[in-house]
Amino acid sequence: MCGKYIVSKSPKASSVSPVPQATDNGHQPQPIINLDHGDPTMYESYWKEVGQKYSVTIPVFQSLSYFANMKNLCWFLEPKLEEEIKTLHKNVGNAITENRHIIVGTGSSQLILAALYALSDSLNDRIRSALSQQLHTTRLVAKFQFLGALLQSYPEITDFLRSQLYKWSGDARCFDKDGPYIEMVTSPNNPDGVIRKPVVNRAQGMVVHDLAYYWPQYTAITSPADHDIMLFTVSKCTGHAGSRIGWALVRDENIAKKMVKFIEINTIGVSKEAQLRAANILEIISLSCQKQRPRDLDNFFEHSHQLMAERWKKLRNAVKNNQLFYVPKFPNHYCNFTNEFTGTYPGFAWIKCKEGVDCEKLFREHKILTRSGKRFGGDAEYVRISMLSRDEEFDLFVQRLSTIHGTGNQN
Amino acid sequence: MCGKYIVSKSPKASSVSPVPQATDNGHQPQPIINLDHGDPTMYESYWKEVGQKYSVTIPVFQSLSYFANMKNLCWFLEPKLEEEIKTLHKNVGNAITENRHIIVGTGSSQLILAALYALSDSLNDRIRSALSQQLHTTRLVAKFQFLGALLQSYPEITDFLRSQLYKWSGDARCFDKDGPYIEMVTSPNNPDGVIRKPVVNRAQGMVVHDLAYYWPQYTAITSPADHDIMLFTVSKCTGHAGSRIGWALVRDENIAKKMVKFIEINTIGVSKEAQLRAANILEIISLSCQKQRPRDLDNFFEHSHQLMAERWKKLRNAVKNNQLFYVPKFPNHYCNFTNEFTGTYPGFAWIKCKEGVDCEKLFREHKILTRSGKRFGGDAEYVRISMLSRDEEFDLFVQRLSTIHGTGNQN
Repeated sequence: MCGKYIVSKSPKASSVSPVPQATDNGHQPQPIINLDHGDPTMYESYWKEVGQKYSVTIPVFQSLSYFANMKNLCWFLEPKLEEEIKTLHKNVGNAITENRHIIVGTGSSQLILAALYALSDSLNDRIRSALSQQLHTTRLVAKFQFLGALLQSYPEITDFLRSQLYKWSGDARCFDKDGPYIEMVTSPNNPDGVIRKPVVNRAQGMVVHDLAYYWPQYTAITSPADHDIMLFTVSKCTGHAGSRIGWALVRDENIAKKMVKFIEINTIGVSKEAQLRAANILEIISLSCQKQRPRDLDNFFEHSHQLMAERWKKLRNAVKNNQLFYVPKFPNHYCNFTNEFTGTYPGFAWIKCKEGVDCEKLFREHKILTRSGKRFGGDAEYVRISMLSRDEEFDLFVQRLSTIHGTGNQN
Repeated sequence: MCGKYIVSKSPKASSVSPVPQATDNGHQPQPIINLDHGDPTMYESYWKEVGQKYSVTIPVFQSLSYFANMKNLCWFLEPKLEEEIKTLHKNVGNAITENRHIIVGTGSSQLILAALYALSDSLNDRIRSALSQQLHTTRLVAKFQFLGALLQSYPEITDFLRSQLYKWSGDARCFDKDGPYIEMVTSPNNPDGVIRKPVVNRAQGMVVHDLAYYWPQYTAITSPADHDIMLFTVSKCTGHAGSRIGWALVRDENIAKKMVKFIEINTIGVSKEAQLRAANILEIISLSCQKQRPRDLDNFFEHSHQLMAERWKKLRNAVKNNQLFYVPKFPNHYCNFTNEFTGTYPGFAWIKCKEGVDCEKLFREHKILTRSGKRFGGDAEYVRISMLSRDEEFDLFVQRLSTIHGTGNQN
């Protein structure tokens, strides 16, 4: 199926939307549970345990300059962050950093835009010199019918500025046009958690790998990723979404330079405070993975993997005697990081209701806010539910989920 | 004169450009003095005096969420920063904040893009509903022949993504087309330090006021600014350019919402660490302006005003017996903040060489990197020189400047 994407007027609006009206189904007033957005607050408990000892202090006279390292291609990248990114990837074994340019971005959203700019501009450079002086438009296609870490933002971010450099062309599986294209490959995929590879595989194609969820708490680390452009973000790795720090590992120097140029023009670099704190946090995580780690420091990935596994278990238990919901199953894989076979525990649950049920509407009637499958080019029978909320909110959700057995909205 | 803008391939490239080759004019090897970019490191000495006592500490478990205040229209704005912005404007008297929405941005560059998006999108909304379904393109015009705080980035940031929403139309003084337009008014102006007002003043016009330099160290505060969209940045106010924090004061709710949407899609908000530190720094500055301030805390604006006045005096002294350079003079104005008549001390000196001399080339021969007037739509006889570098660099500059008496490049 080549799904149609319903572009939200505002991707965050739903997160701050007014409280829905109480239904007339006789339920007592219940608190709203908002699992629409993927705000990764579940790691807060780990970081509270870690505590004040690992706080970061920034003196008032530090980092006044725009520049972090004038000798680096990415002149606004803090050397300490660069070092900690390399160390963490080496410790986890999830990506190759050798012979790559590291580019820091204000979250991976800015890096996606930077990559689109860099690829389409480079391609147009080539086309211009090879064919004519006329400017071509690069098509952007997304992986499968579901989009990546930024979900419906893919069409939104590519279309909202009405750039003449690229345009959104929808589902990669349905892409049958000639000419240059950029394919976004999100792996593990959001919302369905599946490991993905490019599907178009034609001449004049370029691929951006969004690997936001390729960390041991979500999936087995089967090999170090080795692609031309790989995007990561602290939001999903460590839970510090408020920092707005992402990074790209980029093989080609010309593409890397263009990405830096984009960030230069867009925001003149990336906050030094956020970079310094992110460096500090990545350092703590690397330290926590060592055999000789401090006594008061749990292994972050073991801890968060266990937490995710428990949540998925609770979710499956809540619907196990229920014919209404279907929760997907995932194969086990051998993880090179943990040295054992492990399950897959995506940051979002991609839940299917039985045929004919508008799943988002059903949850909404029970004051659970989710994101409809329609928003990902899928069907109304699907919803995406964040698995990353705080403990109390998640527990309230599975408790309420276990009480839902029927629906009034079946067509 | 309706100048032509020479758009740099990369606005920061000049700041990190390779060292120029030594000249054959017999000079001993001298260090390069880079006064091309406006990196505001001159305030570093003040902040070093302030010292460790006012450092900001961010616990590792703080600010994980994307959200800062879900009840606020600008949901990613830290309440503490909002409060300190209001307090500082009240203390300084340079802008009205009542009945304004405060929107934080990743530096004012992001806010300029957000304002352009919001205004052109709103205008297209109106045009669409009034006239037809056809999308119109909004023209962007800049104030006078010189551009604002981001200088040559104005045409670059508006053109590089080749948006169909707006296009760069050059010098506002030469704007003679019909239809909607956006005028950027930078006041005090960069590079020439002059107080400016809109010049186009036609129906269907919208104005963005970039007030990055409307602070007491640069100019007299004659009245609180009271415009529809006003942009400020900590870079030029406090010197913390590395934080990438700017803010907009916006009257219209619909425009404010669209600006928030832009930042949402562009970077999903603004780094919390940077906001918390900026809040801390603005608080220190407000505290330093109080009569009952701590003994070890100099009044920031008095201190920085004095520093700027001294630098301008040194600059004028260095060229006073020299027929080669012309340094502009500014009238004194009564400043409501200091309660006295005061001079104007722009962050950049807009220096003119005598007729026929390529001023940037002349300085380059003496290993002083400046930005040519051609980059601002002006003549090669002009250069912009940063007055904001560190003390030792500035002193070296005026010392070298005083030794320049002739040129070999006169035509």
